[in-house]
Amino acid sequence: MEDLARERAETTFDVEAMKIIWAGGRQAFELQHKLASIVANDPVFRKDNKPNMTRKELFIGGIRKAAHCRELALELGLSEDDARTLRTLRGEKAYDDLHWNMFIPVLRTQATAEQQKKWLPLATSMSVIGCYAQTEIGHGSNVQGLETTATFDPSTDEFILNSPTLTSTKWWPGGLGKVATHAIVHARLILDKDYGVHAFIVQIRSLEDHKPLRTITVGDIGQKFGNGGNNTVDNGFAQFNNTRIPRDNLLMRMAIVTKEGKYVRQNVPKQMLYGGMIAARQIILMEASMDLSHAVTIAVRYSAVRRQFSLDDGNREIQVLDYPTQQQKIFPLLASAYAFRFVGQWMESLYSEVMYQFENNNFSALAEIHACTSGLKALTTSVTADAIEKCRKACGGHGYLCASGLPELFAAYIPSCTYEGDNTLLFIQVGKFLVKTILNMKTSFRPQGTTQYLADLDLLTKKNCEVSDEDDWLSSNVILGAFKARAARLALSISRQILKFPNQDAGFEELSVNLVSVAQAHCQLIVLSKFIDKVHGAIPGLNVKKQLQLLCNTYGLSLVCEHVEDFLVTGYLTKRQANLARHQLRSLLSHVRPNAIALVDSFDHTDHYLGSVLGRYDGDVYTHLYMEALKDPFNNSAVTEGYKEYIEPIIKQRLQSSKL
Amino acid sequence: MEDLARERAETTFDVEAMKIIWAGGRQAFELQHKLASIVANDPVFRKDNKPNMTRKELFIGGIRKAAHCRELALELGLSEDDARTLRTLRGEKAYDDLHWNMFIPVLRTQATAEQQKKWLPLATSMSVIGCYAQTEIGHGSNVQGLETTATFDPSTDEFILNSPTLTSTKWWPGGLGKVATHAIVHARLILDKDYGVHAFIVQIRSLEDHKPLRTITVGDIGQKFGNGGNNTVDNGFAQFNNTRIPRDNLLMRMAIVTKEGKYVRQNVPKQMLYGGMIAARQIILMEASMDLSHAVTIAVRYSAVRRQFSLDDGNREIQVLDYPTQQQKIFPLLASAYAFRFVGQWMESLYSEVMYQFENNNFSALAEIHACTSGLKALTTSVTADAIEKCRKACGGHGYLCASGLPELFAAYIPSCTYEGDNTLLFIQVGKFLVKTILNMKTSFRPQGTTQYLADLDLLTKKNCEVSDEDDWLSSNVILGAFKARAARLALSISRQILKFPNQDAGFEELSVNLVSVAQAHCQLIVLSKFIDKVHGAIPGLNVKKQLQLLCNTYGLSLVCEHVEDFLVTGYLTKRQANLARHQLRSLLSHVRPNAIALVDSFDHTDHYLGSVLGRYDGDVYTHLYMEALKDPFNNSAVTEGYKEYIEPIIKQRLQSSKL
Ligand SMILES: Cc1cc2nc3c(=O)[nH]c(=O)nc-3n(C[C@H](O)[C@H](O)[C@H](O)COP(=O)(O)OP(=O)(O)OC[C@H]3O[C@@H](n4cnc5c(N)ncnc54)[C@H](O)[C@@H]3O)c2cc1C
Ligand SMILES: Cc1cc2nc3c(=O)[nH]c(=O)nc-3n(C[C@H](O)[C@H](O)[C@H](O)COP(=O)(O)OP(=O)(O)OC[C@H]3O[C@@H](n4cnc5c(N)ncnc54)[C@H](O)[C@@H]3O)c2cc1C
Ligand SMILES: [Ca+2]
Repeated sequence: MEDLARERAETTFDVEAMKIIWAGGRQAFELQHKLASIVANDPVFRKDNKPNMTRKELFIGGIRKAAHCRELALELGLSEDDARTLRTLRGEKAYDDLHWNMFIPVLRTQATAEQQKKWLPLATSMSVIGCYAQTEIGHGSNVQGLETTATFDPSTDEFILNSPTLTSTKWWPGGLGKVATHAIVHARLILDKDYGVHAFIVQIRSLEDHKPLRTITVGDIGQKFGNGGNNTVDNGFAQFNNTRIPRDNLLMRMAIVTKEGKYVRQNVPKQMLYGGMIAARQIILMEASMDLSHAVTIAVRYSAVRRQFSLDDGNREIQVLDYPTQQQKIFPLLASAYAFRFVGQWMESLYSEVMYQFENNNFSALAEIHACTSGLKALTTSVTADAIEKCRKACGGHGYLCASGLPELFAAYIPSCTYEGDNTLLFIQVGKFLVKTILNMKTSFRPQGTTQYLADLDLLTKKNCEVSDEDDWLSSNVILGAFKARAARLALSISRQILKFPNQDAGFEELSVNLVSVAQAHCQLIVLSKFIDKVHGAIPGLNVKKQLQLLCNTYGLSLVCEHVEDFLVTGYLTKRQANLARHQLRSLLSHVRPNAIALVDSFDHTDHYLGSVLGRYDGDVYTHLYMEALKDPFNNSAVTEGYKEYIEPIIKQRLQSSKL
Repeated sequence: MEDLARERAETTFDVEAMKIIWAGGRQAFELQHKLASIVANDPVFRKDNKPNMTRKELFIGGIRKAAHCRELALELGLSEDDARTLRTLRGEKAYDDLHWNMFIPVLRTQATAEQQKKWLPLATSMSVIGCYAQTEIGHGSNVQGLETTATFDPSTDEFILNSPTLTSTKWWPGGLGKVATHAIVHARLILDKDYGVHAFIVQIRSLEDHKPLRTITVGDIGQKFGNGGNNTVDNGFAQFNNTRIPRDNLLMRMAIVTKEGKYVRQNVPKQMLYGGMIAARQIILMEASMDLSHAVTIAVRYSAVRRQFSLDDGNREIQVLDYPTQQQKIFPLLASAYAFRFVGQWMESLYSEVMYQFENNNFSALAEIHACTSGLKALTTSVTADAIEKCRKACGGHGYLCASGLPELFAAYIPSCTYEGDNTLLFIQVGKFLVKTILNMKTSFRPQGTTQYLADLDLLTKKNCEVSDEDDWLSSNVILGAFKARAARLALSISRQILKFPNQDAGFEELSVNLVSVAQAHCQLIVLSKFIDKVHGAIPGLNVKKQLQLLCNTYGLSLVCEHVEDFLVTGYLTKRQANLARHQLRSLLSHVRPNAIALVDSFDHTDHYLGSVLGRYDGDVYTHLYMEALKDPFNNSAVTEGYKEYIEPIIKQRLQSSKL
């Protein structure tokens, strides 16, 4: 306990100023801080007994908290964004996340102006509760392969929805199982022929008594990973049996179906069908920084409280955070949390800019924002998922107790790697985008935005790294140059190989493992460059800039060391330069150490949000581990239930005769 | 479904012969097969509703299964080893695993002959049920820092046990919480002075009525990771308050305390205090191959059933197992499962040999077997834990359902990375052992056993890789040579750096990250070399040897590619050779593909053991996913519980007035 107080006293930078940077400005900080303390002090949001709850209790707790969030949002007059912050702070998912993060953004991007006029007020007042029903049991990634049909019946001016096969059963949509009144359903549009997958609004349950509509079989798909996790959400299934919806429930911004059943394309790119996903992925990016910082806070604080081994017998034991292996596990993740935060903030503003353009029918940025959100979603969720488990392992045995908070965080987080696009497929897409960018450059096209660096391909492939001593690695230009060269060289090498394949698609498939690598390299470059931009901006507060510079270098160099083979194989680094990077990283990690506690305090996470005995702000870990155990109902009786039946017969050697 | 049948029909090797090799011989195979089918058909062992069970239900189910296993073992007259196989096949842990895998081995290695005569019959008849109580809430890795005291009272010829602090509370021992009657308790032996940590047998509960002894506060430490997982085990806590035990309950093989309170060292190395851990780690090695093959079976089968995307529109979609990225995720793990199996079999026989020597007071192999079991435990558990999650992700969304079996497998498996020694610390120890071996060589000492290759240090550091085309990588000598050179060079480099530190311990600490790398390299070399030995032995059955050769190459080359930086930085490989390795690996993976189903069938896992809808032998995945969902009690009502309270007020806009 006194360890954390001492560490805090020895902090060398302005923690309050850092909190404001993390939050994205003073106003944002104040609001987040206020909402966090409201949540932390409200009994409805308590998490105490969660690990012991059954699925049903978890779900009921989830809808209770959702209702309470809604009420608070109305009472406090929160904006949509601020209400989302409130939901994030409650620390568990529910159907309302899908309503606000998927259903509504789809309406905004894919519904016509009139449709929006009808549906948006219903949705934003929550008079209808929506979900996003794309995935089927047989098709997730391959959206074009979805089997649900929507056949037009001109005689009634309706579409008739059907689930023609078992595999066409809608499967996974959050909120569909038990709560949603409406769903955005992706189905094949059948007129004179099959026009492929389109999005429809389908009512699922009665607005009167909440009973499912007669023609729809709907339910919950069952228990998911972990005892907490996403088990508060009613991921559902649905089968349609001649379900009729008005023609106007087809979202018609990209294409209209007339009364006569004629299909009329509109001047909006087809890719806008996945416009809702751009919104969702951008949110996922911010969540990554929240969940990663959550895990890192627990691991850093506990590692400063935990002492194990002394170098000289008799001396006080060492805080495990002082061990180089422990620092190497945790500090790159601490740096990544900051990195993801800043790239998330950047994406947030890019996103609103682009949404504004979309509203005004300017779609020029679509390909770029699509690649960017896809790749960054894949990168940040992969890293965060792995990081939570690394942090858990770094807490030794106690990390395995639910009381550490880490099991639930992991269980809740990992599906981010799968939903809104399987990360492997997203990386492959981004990889293709890069390679095609290079192939197109030969035809006088100039890459823009985050791929702009590829314009310097010649230079990037010819000029090798100039680092000659350890400290050269601290220059932003040096490290940025290395990342650009790596991504460019990997992309160039694939684009050369691809030309040898008679069929480009077959070539992309054969080289898909390489596409994943280049996409990762490219996305790391984006994150790093946004971090560097941040550090180079105006940063108030004593030594705050210095700490961010340190973290930025740590982020970059830990990636150089982790992927050093890329830099070596492409010939950009020599063995000696790679070794210098390793030494510099070791030194950076030891410089992160003194302010580590303050750097996690800067996330401003409450004990309620952390939900972790190991991550407590006061560091009083052991007392509370013990108290948690005593609370377990399992400890109410001295002799366990089941003793007479299953233990006594063994001990008293009466097993052979007893029948079990 | 027909996919798996077709794949099986096209198998090119003798699956039955492979099953026998996997099992470790025909007799072992027949027994395992028989036990597996007994378990699969016995209603007591059913797992159906497990994900929905509460902690208490899981525990009661666990002791019920344990009692049933004991009864079956008696009925069938199973040997200790075969009874362990039975417990493995039931697919969940209980207190009895600790009794047989820790309590009894400790008695065998640390009790004197007379003590064994008294305690072993009680233990092997389960008239007493034992657990292993080493860890305290404040000390796990640092065993020397344990705080529990055992003070000798000559007046009564007893030791008095005490827990002087909160942090000295015993914490984690499996079986201690609710079941064990006795514990091996590690405590500081206090005579005229503190003699450090020793092991004592302490009775915990009455053999009459199972009530905890008056002077012991004991209970369960609470919910652990996941809803299934280790929650069937009663990991416990205990505090001693002047608990008295007879002097003779000190395990005295290494040191005797006389009636007068004199401490007399025996001629048995102190390190035998951790003799029980050698047994446990050797078992963990075999478990790794079981659990890894479990996950891989699910991922491979499902990936052959799952079809997603077609290259040409209209064509049948592609089995996702055909995608190179999918193969790259799963096939190295398939190869690792075989690799871990064979190194496990090798260790099993080494272990019985060494135990025989120990019984005859020959301890010359202690250091070697200690390093070997430590390092291999750390390697195989790290890989397996990560692999389970990789396999889960490779199953897309459906992998996140408990019905896939993978969430529970993960939750149950991961603590292997922590218990019986935190993997980081084990690697550091092995790393030190290697570096010290090199430092000692300068003084005419010759390395033995698995470190023997270090005797060729000169050659290994001078001669670089001679690969000049892709196929050169297929030679056992080439690949083994590469692994030897890598480990030797990494170790040599540390041993040179260490000499620059004035204090060797401080040097080891500063270089601990490097110690972890060299230890990993060394352990991978051991695994690979045992795999090669196996392949070079007599292997009956059509094409079985050919398949094993393929897997062995896949194992080796996937590691070369994963850790290629080690090979490049040490100068052993050129960039070109590294690229050739990558190409060869791609080609090996495509050769694994046609027999992939048969290679997982060879593990002979029953559907019961797999507990996975995705891994079903018949491949009938979708029907059963759907059936599982329908079974969920959550789907019993059309309108969900909680609707009136928490959903209706939102939809009907009555929220402001309703009080939640
Ligand atoms: C918790 C959770 C919530 C969800 N919520 C929703 C929701 O609200 N609404 C909704 O519609 N859906 C939802 N989903 C579904 C989710 O969007 C899909 O699971 C996701 O799109 C992945 O698709 P899949 O499951 O079909 O994976 P698959 O495509 O079957 O992937 C399986 C494996 O095959 C590989 N693979 C597939 N195709 C290729 C290829 N061409 N090349 C190389 N490899 C390939 C993948 O990389 C993966 O390893 C949710 C899922 C989860 C887990
Ligand atoms: C499911 C489960 C079952 C268990 N069963 C038993 C049982 O039956 N009996 C029993 O006695 N115990 C049991 N244990 C306890 C287990 O043995 C300990 O948790 C384990 O030894 C790790 O010790 P720790 O928890 O103290 O980790 P710590 O040592 O506290 O490790 C925390 C972190 O510090 C790092 N660290 C610590 N020291 C150093 C160092 N010198 N250098 C570098 N890094 C360091 C570690 O690498 C880790 O990252 C069990 C644990 C679990 C999870
Ligand atoms: Ca690497």
